[in-house]
Amino acid sequence: MFKVGIIGATGYVGVELIRLLLNHKGVILEAISSTSFVGKEIDEVYGNFSGVTNLICKDESEVINKCDIIFGAVPHGLSEELAEKILINNKVFIDMGADFRLKNEGAYKQWYKGQFNKKSLHEKAVYGLPELYRNNIKESNLIANPGCYPTSIALGLAPILEKQLGDISTIIIDSKSGVTGAGRNLSLTSHYVECNESFNAYGVGGIHRHVPEIEQVLGEVSGQDIKVTFTPHLLPINRGILSTIYINLSEDISLEEIWEEYNQYYKNEKFVKVLPIGQVAKIKNVTYSNFCHISIHKDERCNRLIVCSTIDNMVKGAAGQGIQNMNLILGLQEDMALEAVPPAF
Amino acid sequence: MFKVGIIGATGYVGVELIRLLLNHKGVILEAISSTSFVGKEIDEVYGNFSGVTNLICKDESEVINKCDIIFGAVPHGLSEELAEKILINNKVFIDMGADFRLKNEGAYKQWYKGQFNKKSLHEKAVYGLPELYRNNIKESNLIANPGCYPTSIALGLAPILEKQLGDISTIIIDSKSGVTGAGRNLSLTSHYVECNESFNAYGVGGIHRHVPEIEQVLGEVSGQDIKVTFTPHLLPINRGILSTIYINLSEDISLEEIWEEYNQYYKNEKFVKVLPIGQVAKIKNVTYSNFCHISIHKDERCNRLIVCSTIDNMVKGAAGQGIQNMNLILGLQEDMALEAVPPAF
Amino acid sequence: MFKVGIIGATGYVGVELIRLLLNHKGVILEAISSTSFVGKEIDEVYGNFSGVTNLICKDESEVINKCDIIFGAVPHGLSEELAEKILINNKVFIDMGADFRLKNEGAYKQWYKGQFNKKSLHEKAVYGLPELYRNNIKESNLIANPGCYPTSIALGLAPILEKQLGDISTIIIDSKSGVTGAGRNLSLTSHYVECNESFNAYGVGGIHRHVPEIEQVLGEVSGQDIKVTFTPHLLPINRGILSTIYINLSEDISLEEIWEEYNQYYKNEKFVKVLPIGQVAKIKNVTYSNFCHISIHKDERCNRLIVCSTIDNMVKGAAGQGIQNMNLILGLQEDMALEAVPPAF
Amino acid sequence: MFKVGIIGATGYVGVELIRLLLNHKGVILEAISSTSFVGKEIDEVYGNFSGVTNLICKDESEVINKCDIIFGAVPHGLSEELAEKILINNKVFIDMGADFRLKNEGAYKQWYKGQFNKKSLHEKAVYGLPELYRNNIKESNLIANPGCYPTSIALGLAPILEKQLGDISTIIIDSKSGVTGAGRNLSLTSHYVECNESFNAYGVGGIHRHVPEIEQVLGEVSGQDIKVTFTPHLLPINRGILSTIYINLSEDISLEEIWEEYNQYYKNEKFVKVLPIGQVAKIKNVTYSNFCHISIHKDERCNRLIVCSTIDNMVKGAAGQGIQNMNLILGLQEDMALEAVPPAF
Repeated sequence: MFKVGIIGATGYVGVELIRLLLNHKGVILEAISSTSFVGKEIDEVYGNFSGVTNLICKDESEVINKCDIIFGAVPHGLSEELAEKILINNKVFIDMGADFRLKNEGAYKQWYKGQFNKKSLHEKAVYGLPELYRNNIKESNLIANPGCYPTSIALGLAPILEKQLGDISTIIIDSKSGVTGAGRNLSLTSHYVECNESFNAYGVGGIHRHVPEIEQVLGEVSGQDIKVTFTPHLLPINRGILSTIYINLSEDISLEEIWEEYNQYYKNEKFVKVLPIGQVAKIKNVTYSNFCHISIHKDERCNRLIVCSTIDNMVKGAAGQGIQNMNLILGLQEDMALEAVPPAF
Repeated sequence: MFKVGIIGATGYVGVELIRLLLNHKGVILEAISSTSFVGKEIDEVYGNFSGVTNLICKDESEVINKCDIIFGAVPHGLSEELAEKILINNKVFIDMGADFRLKNEGAYKQWYKGQFNKKSLHEKAVYGLPELYRNNIKESNLIANPGCYPTSIALGLAPILEKQLGDISTIIIDSKSGVTGAGRNLSLTSHYVECNESFNAYGVGGIHRHVPEIEQVLGEVSGQDIKVTFTPHLLPINRGILSTIYINLSEDISLEEIWEEYNQYYKNEKFVKVLPIGQVAKIKNVTYSNFCHISIHKDERCNRLIVCSTIDNMVKGAAGQGIQNMNLILGLQEDMALEAVPPAF
Repeated sequence: MFKVGIIGATGYVGVELIRLLLNHKGVILEAISSTSFVGKEIDEVYGNFSGVTNLICKDESEVINKCDIIFGAVPHGLSEELAEKILINNKVFIDMGADFRLKNEGAYKQWYKGQFNKKSLHEKAVYGLPELYRNNIKESNLIANPGCYPTSIALGLAPILEKQLGDISTIIIDSKSGVTGAGRNLSLTSHYVECNESFNAYGVGGIHRHVPEIEQVLGEVSGQDIKVTFTPHLLPINRGILSTIYINLSEDISLEEIWEEYNQYYKNEKFVKVLPIGQVAKIKNVTYSNFCHISIHKDERCNRLIVCSTIDNMVKGAAGQGIQNMNLILGLQEDMALEAVPPAF
Repeated sequence: MFKVGIIGATGYVGVELIRLLLNHKGVILEAISSTSFVGKEIDEVYGNFSGVTNLICKDESEVINKCDIIFGAVPHGLSEELAEKILINNKVFIDMGADFRLKNEGAYKQWYKGQFNKKSLHEKAVYGLPELYRNNIKESNLIANPGCYPTSIALGLAPILEKQLGDISTIIIDSKSGVTGAGRNLSLTSHYVECNESFNAYGVGGIHRHVPEIEQVLGEVSGQDIKVTFTPHLLPINRGILSTIYINLSEDISLEEIWEEYNQYYKNEKFVKVLPIGQVAKIKNVTYSNFCHISIHKDERCNRLIVCSTIDNMVKGAAGQGIQNMNLILGLQEDMALEAVPPAF
């Protein structure tokens, strides 16, 4: 069996990877590392692992040495060096962070204030959204796992953009995310009393770092340059993203016809469900699972399409998608460890 | 002192009126009625009133007889008759429901499947949004208290529309409301397990009944016919609405200039606060109060204005605004019983 | 493979059984029934099943005919008849309800206002708490699946009672349960606005129907008649029970010694974890899993033991435990379909 | 009008004092101080004050100089020195912290690891629970404002203890508190993702610092030495405490007779409501108000009394009670600024 490791295992993405990988029948979770908790058993850091695993947080090099395929869930800016070390050993690296997502160095400089030190790695890196780039992913040993917001948005818009049915200058994306998206680092924003029973936007005005990633993937799908207005909001729930997406229709096309396009587009995809007309996508129907639910709606009075796209930001928006990528690379069944049915509550 | 009554006092709007009116120093809450709980003390229906009041639910006629000014918080379709009975007795009626909000009977027929049986009443009725119609309200004895969503939206858009700075064909409103908006009637939608830790849109595609009300008030402010796309969502919190509003700017104008317009527009308004540039409107900063917080933002890349407008749907979006209207009609200080500072948590 | 069916599949317990059984590798979920939704696909009733299964709600008889082992999740009072029909066909019945839990008909009459019409069935029925009655369960074809509160309490007290280390006249149990425990039936108690941001006890004073069940199982473990004070509370969360249990120690024994007894008692149990001294049992560490976490504490000043015992009321407290019982009866591995690691959030 | 100041105004207790004092008609909130935010306007620190006040955080000495009566909401250990400075200037000090609550220096040493440096101040200090010590409070210039848990517990047990109707060796207190109780300091315990949808006890085994305070006040009421088992729990809500209190009855007395004692005891108290038999105290019926609701219940089978006592931990459990004490000292009406009716939701 393949040996899998996680570098940066004690953040929320890392710990969700552990949870899912412990139930994987085709790989072994061999080693994990953490900067803050090295030497500690993982169940001392997260009580949910009590009696489930005795994995101990090691250092990074031990993970690289012991494992065939390595997930990196480390802060922005550290992945280039990691990738180099891993690839030089002929191993596979799946980067859960943003470092390899943008193809354009100019965009990277502008939004992340960094530069591409190892350009050949950036050329190799494949954007790990299986529904759009499955064949490239299978051949790759360096995956840039997509951001949570971009995943929900790209899946929600791909069919209409590919078919050129909308006016791409009118795309407005109003996204809402649960608090796990902000991670385990303490901040007033994630302080219970401050976000409970509240709600607000943040990064308003096209300044969130997911903007260039969204525009890159939508641009590739549509074959055109795209600018979007993207407004993320903080929802007082643990998990889940719902993106409500608006786009003017460029011609007279019925909701039924659009629905048919969506349905065709995803007809072979296990993890993307286009809901019947009349239903709305709800966060609670996808949490704890790798599913994306999409509902489409038309404002007849304004000839505008409205797409509701929802995922669990920690699964399809992070750890689950990472494992889906891993399965593709290893030639395993794509849904291994991802078969869990979303709970009703 | 003026005697005030509430017809339909045991729904959420009615009970919020009671709470606020019990602290009013200029009027007496004289009588309340309820269809479901007639004869019961209000604290048997809502435990929060225990030891605070012994008000007993009477029938409607007793409220009309005893009171000078009457709030109606009754289901849609019952207000015309109520209004007639009240006005014939030279009393004042503040209707918390939708029956008198739309001026256009055609729109009423289309959206509410009813008709105007007493047309003269509809001509008399004043739309009770004090910041836009204060002078009319002062002279009126029949108030159509605005809907919660329209209040947040009209206040958020009025300055830019009046100044003709935006392209009115591009207005998209993405609103999110707490569960009190759905009332106390039992439904799966408001069942704890079903909405907790979830989030979804509803009435998507321009089919929510607040659409014509929104378009009416925005039309009056701008002097133009307006069509909007409006998508409400259900937030897993008790109180509060946040509307995120998008409009393309029709010319090259800086955020600072727009902010100045907003600030000027509301400079004499106690209850509307335009937040400093860089801040975002948050639901928790207005709940339990009659305030509306507005933050404005610009997506420079798309020349689009984004307005975040937030109110407590039960106060400024219902009971508080009703009392503000009452104060204006009675010549009392506009903020009586509405001075409460919003709690920090 | 064994064919499994569920009668009453559209309540919360039924739907949680579906979720878990769809991932079971040793049985097939063959048929489900529902009174309210007969003829409907289950994903029309619960959107989380969208694209996961096409199971259709049939009537009860079809479930009985097609399946080898049948779960009943029906309202109180209907199980005797069901059990008879199922057992006469040499099939296995696991009753998720209360009808077969009490051995004493007098107690049943007193607490449930019913009687034992088919006494031989009650003699056959085995109380399905595997950690205490595993051998009996293996031999049985009629299981009374335990209540959620009694499960958390029996597991929390069994070691100290069996060892006779506590004064059984002093047992006080203060339990707190999430709202799923109240089911999907609409009621003001489960209305979002009414229970969100609130908390209260209910059934206070030893009047909750789980009292005789708790006393029965504690009595069997200890070999003595036991009376307890039991106070359930409603927690504003979806899932999980925490029982805080108090008992005076009958002798001078250290916390370490008691911990050793607990640890010994459960050393071969996969699903019960006795936490290290100094840790406290937390609901979030067991939700969505079949685990029970127990932490023990001593108030040295009062010579009192405090036990915190937590489970997911819908898994170990209902559906998961039912499947654990089924696995035992069918000779399958006890943890099949129950291996899921509890998520960290 | 009296001038009031707050030292330590930017913690949750301080900010709740500001909110309530801004609506006080008999005093002026003259000055506030903060260590972390000196020089900042309070609405930069808490957005709910936007447009409501321009108060600026000053330093401590300015508050002492300008004000007649000063609230201290500072970390443990700093109040002795503050009290000295304030009293020497013939002003009044209401300490929201724990430094003056314990009368016994030995207990203070044991639980707070400190000592009484200024013993005369400790002799002067009055425990500010108005329902029990009103006359002493009126004469005092140094108030130890009670802890939140002890307030709910002392009010819940006072009648039965004073009447000697219970067995004081059997008192068990199971308390549950909202997250505001943990303050605004960042910690994993108060991190949204970690406490949302969870629940747990903490400080189990009689080790919470409120234990000696509880025992002191119960001892004074009963005239006997009392030891209690006290277990606090963290509730996933913002505000509110519910204490469920157990005590064996020492004789044969009916629930009605006990209820009569409770009712008599509090018959002149505005802020304490003994609920009718059959009702249960609920947190949501007291939040945002200074009320305490008490419900009493009897487990006839065990001859045990169960008392449910609930308050808003930030109002009656902190800021509101502080203002009640201030009103008494200043000879104002006891409920000034505390008349707010608790909202129904």
